[in-house]
Formats: sequence, structure tokens, C-alpha cells
Amino acid sequence: MSDTAPKESVPYELRVSPEDAFDASIGLVVDDADEIGRCVGHVPVRPGVCQPMGIVHGGVYAAIAETLASMGTARGVLPEGGVPLGMSNNTSFLRPVSEGAVHGVGIAIHRGRMSWVWDVEMRDDEGRLCATSRVTIAVRDHGPR
Amino acid sequence: MSDTAPKESVPYELRVSPEDAFDASIGLVVDDADEIGRCVGHVPVRPGVCQPMGIVHGGVYAAIAETLASMGTARGVLPEGGVPLGMSNNTSFLRPVSEGAVHGVGIAIHRGRMSWVWDVEMRDDEGRLCATSRVTIAVRDHGPR
Amino acid sequence: MSDTAPKESVPYELRVSPEDAFDASIGLVVDDADEIGRCVGHVPVRPGVCQPMGIVHGGVYAAIAETLASMGTARGVLPEGGVPLGMSNNTSFLRPVSEGAVHGVGIAIHRGRMSWVWDVEMRDDEGRLCATSRVTIAVRDHGPR
Amino acid sequence: MSDTAPKESVPYELRVSPEDAFDASIGLVVDDADEIGRCVGHVPVRPGVCQPMGIVHGGVYAAIAETLASMGTARGVLPEGGVPLGMSNNTSFLRPVSEGAVHGVGIAIHRGRMSWVWDVEMRDDEGRLCATSRVTIAVRDHGPR
Repeated sequence: MSDTAPKESVPYELRVSPEDAFDASIGLVVDDADEIGRCVGHVPVRPGVCQPMGIVHGGVYAAIAETLASMGTARGVLPEGGVPLGMSNNTSFLRPVSEGAVHGVGIAIHRGRMSWVWDVEMRDDEGRLCATSRVTIAVRDHGPR
Repeated sequence: MSDTAPKESVPYELRVSPEDAFDASIGLVVDDADEIGRCVGHVPVRPGVCQPMGIVHGGVYAAIAETLASMGTARGVLPEGGVPLGMSNNTSFLRPVSEGAVHGVGIAIHRGRMSWVWDVEMRDDEGRLCATSRVTIAVRDHGPR
Repeated sequence: MSDTAPKESVPYELRVSPEDAFDASIGLVVDDADEIGRCVGHVPVRPGVCQPMGIVHGGVYAAIAETLASMGTARGVLPEGGVPLGMSNNTSFLRPVSEGAVHGVGIAIHRGRMSWVWDVEMRDDEGRLCATSRVTIAVRDHGPR
Repeated sequence: MSDTAPKESVPYELRVSPEDAFDASIGLVVDDADEIGRCVGHVPVRPGVCQPMGIVHGGVYAAIAETLASMGTARGVLPEGGVPLGMSNNTSFLRPVSEGAVHGVGIAIHRGRMSWVWDVEMRDDEGRLCATSRVTIAVRDHGPR
């Protein structure tokens, strides 16, 4: 099989301090996360998360969804020896946001042994749906420590 | 129909200075863009584009793809009175990257009057495919100035 | 722009009798459809909708979702002079089905002037989620009659 | 974890005769398949694969892509004890087809130990790109026989 195959077991250790990592750079605040498939967070709108037309960049919605799904999966699988690994992120953009915050709520619609599948809805301050993501997170075994 | 309907014609003007915008915050460099469906760029890997495990955050791949597809579409449609508006971004993660740069090449596989569809491949310094995105950009009319 | 551009206005007329068309060949029954974004249907499981391992073929879930979303959009936009045109169909397979029926419920999460976006959930006879689709349907103008 | 988790090892045996199965009902002919990630097939256009407007139903494109990706993955992994299991199918519709045949070419862009990722392009008789799919196939272990 291909030499590009991901390792079945992966090391899981922190290599970048959270305050230096990407989530901090977009100002993502995780407000809540449980181990059974719910994770909530928000990103305040400011120029650094927008594209030049002054609306939130599409990559920011995808990033919010990716983090909420990954973190939620981690909460569920790390205690059982699993490690989350993002497989795919499908984001649809429904309504531009230019002020306030983007509020994301992720719900796991499938929690399998090999993968979790999440729906993440992102809304503006008025509660209007602005973007929605389906994120698939593979669950792999811990590598040796 | 829904009051959440996007306006058919949209204003297109710069409201955020490029050096303050999201692309700059992830260090995205657009290396080349033409008006017939090709756009190339890269992001150097550093802590600010990684998640805490030290690999590039999934949202960063989605963001690279979104920008290349949007910018490439803009090059093609702005001269004819069109405005690009991101509709969806489907990104698959194939291989983690932890050093060097992520190099993206976007190709428009469909250039319609109402939408352009892009494939964006992202590779590491060794040329290995690390992520791939399909991005759909709607084309709307300029709004009144 | 590309000569492959879809026409902005499209003719909308029946050219294939419904009983000869694809939906009939998979036994799709539309149980309910309104004009504000809800469409429900089901497909009884039989060999003709399965792959050789005896489980429902992935294309059948995608087809159910595509029809429910298209038909639901048609109900909403035809009276106002719009024509639905499928743009994309993203289906995730969560649980194999080998007996009973596949029951689909489609809900429009976005009803815009230019496109409608649907979530379609497909469940087995026990109500377990087996597949889920996000379908984007473009809305174009009627062509001349 | 969830009781809906797919089994890590799955039985792989024929339960439906290929001539009674879904692929036969849409007239899918697999023209070529190798074990290193290429699979080719076509579907002749006739009323039974169309929607009532007389164009090929979106679910048929998704089905072609799903079969080519599954069959191609099977060729590669069955000899090594793996079983293909469809995870997701993302299809974009670019150009309607109403006559001739739909010709699909699937290429595996990633062949990992746990999953294969395919791009499937579908063209009309004139070679124009009409639909394109990204299909992710999980690779599971054979169950006990």
C-alpha cells in the first residue's frame, strides 16, 4: 500500500503552546465541551478574521468547526486511548457576517469506534445561521509513549 | 422566500486593509493568479498556523483553498462586472505537515456564469499531497456604487 | 467566460414520464413535500437498491437526498418562476442498512434567492441515523416557453 | 462509545447477485479496474437514469463514483485482508447530460492504511466534464469467516 499511509497509531502530545497556536490567533474561545458529543465556542469579529471586503473569511468558519469537532472528539476518545485526527471538513457559507461574533455549536451525529461525524452550526449575534460544517474526525490509537 | 436570501447584487469594495486581514495573519503569500482559472500560493509553517500537536490546523488548509479560489475567480469575473462569493469549501486532510510550507495550487474545473468550481491541491516541501479542497464560488453582479 | 457555463434561464418541462424515471427504478416514494422547505420520502430495501454485499448502495442514499431536496425546492420556487438545478450533494454514510426501508427527511436550512441548502437525514426502520446529506440546489429563472 | 459504532472488522461476502444489484439496475459497466487506484466505467443514458426533465439524475453520478471508488479500493485491499466501506461521497454537478453515456474515471489520490480517497471525473460523449466526486472509502479488517 502507499507509503503515504497515515500511521495507525499516532503520538499525542502538545508541541505548540495553546496561546501561540492558530486558535489563539483567530481569537477562538471554547465555551463548553463535553465527552459525549457537544462542543461550543465563538470568535469575535475583527479585521484579523475578515477578508478585505470586511466579512468573516470562509476559512475562519471552517477553522471554528474543525476545532470544535476535534476538541469534542478528543474529550470523548482520549480517556479510552484514542486520538482524534481530522479527515474532512465540508463547510457551506450561507450568510456573511461583518460584526459581533460568530457563535459555533458542534454536535456529534455519529460516534463510532473509528470515526466521529459532527455537524457544526455557526450563527451571528442575532442567531441567524451563517455557515454550517460537516466534519469527520478519525479516531486512531495512541502511539507508544 | 426567505428573508435570509443573499442579495443578488453585492457591493464590492475594500473595507479591511489587506495587511490587517485574515490572510496576512496566517502568512499567506499569493504567488500567482491569472484570470482563466489558476491561482497559486503558500503558507510557511510556524506555531501560529498549527494546532497544539504541532501540525498545521485543518482550518488553515481550508483557508488557503478559499483564498486561492476566491482570488482566482475575482480575477476572472471582476472585469466583467461579477463579484465572487464563497458558497462551499470541502477539504480532505491526507497527511499532516509540521515544517516547511504548505504549497497550494488552485485550478478552476468549471467556470460558469453563475459559479466557478475549483480544485485546490496542497503539498509539502517534498511535493507530497497533504490536503485537497473543492471550493464553489458563486458569481454575483456588482451592486450599485 | 467558459462556454460550459450553464444557461442562467433553463427550460422546465417534463421529458421523461415519472414512472419510467430513475426515482421509480429505485422505488422512491415521496410521502410529503411542502413549499417552505420540508420533503419526506422512503425507499424499501430490496436487491435492486443494494450492492453485492447486501447493503444499500451509497448512491441510493445520495439519490434519495437529491430528489427530496430538488422536489422540495421546486415546490418553493416554481410558483415564483424559479427552476431548481442541483449543484452539489455531500453524503456521509454512518450505518449500513440491509432490510426494511430507508426513510429520508429533508429540511431546507437556507432558502435564498439564488440557492437553497438542504440537510437530509436518512434512518432505518428503528429510527437510527444511517446516512446524512447536505445538498445545494441552485435556483435559476424559467427559460422562454 | 456509541452502540452505533461500525464494527472494526466486517464480513465480506456476496449476498446479492451482481445482476440483481443496484449497479445493474442503472446499467453501470465497469470497463477497467486495477489494484493501484484506477477504475473506469460508464452508464448509457436512458429514461431509467434520468429525472423527469430528461437529464441524468444527480444520484446516478454519485452512484457511479461510489461504485468505481469502492471497487477500485476493493481491488487494492482485499488481497491484503482489507474490506472497503464507503464513508462519504461529495459530488458536484457541472453540466447536465441528456444523451449518449456518462463516462467515469476514478483515480485514488490517497491510498492509506485506514482509508482511500478518490477523485472521480464524469464526462459526456464529447469529453466535457459534467460531474466530479470526491469519495472516501474506509478500509476495515475482514471479519471471521
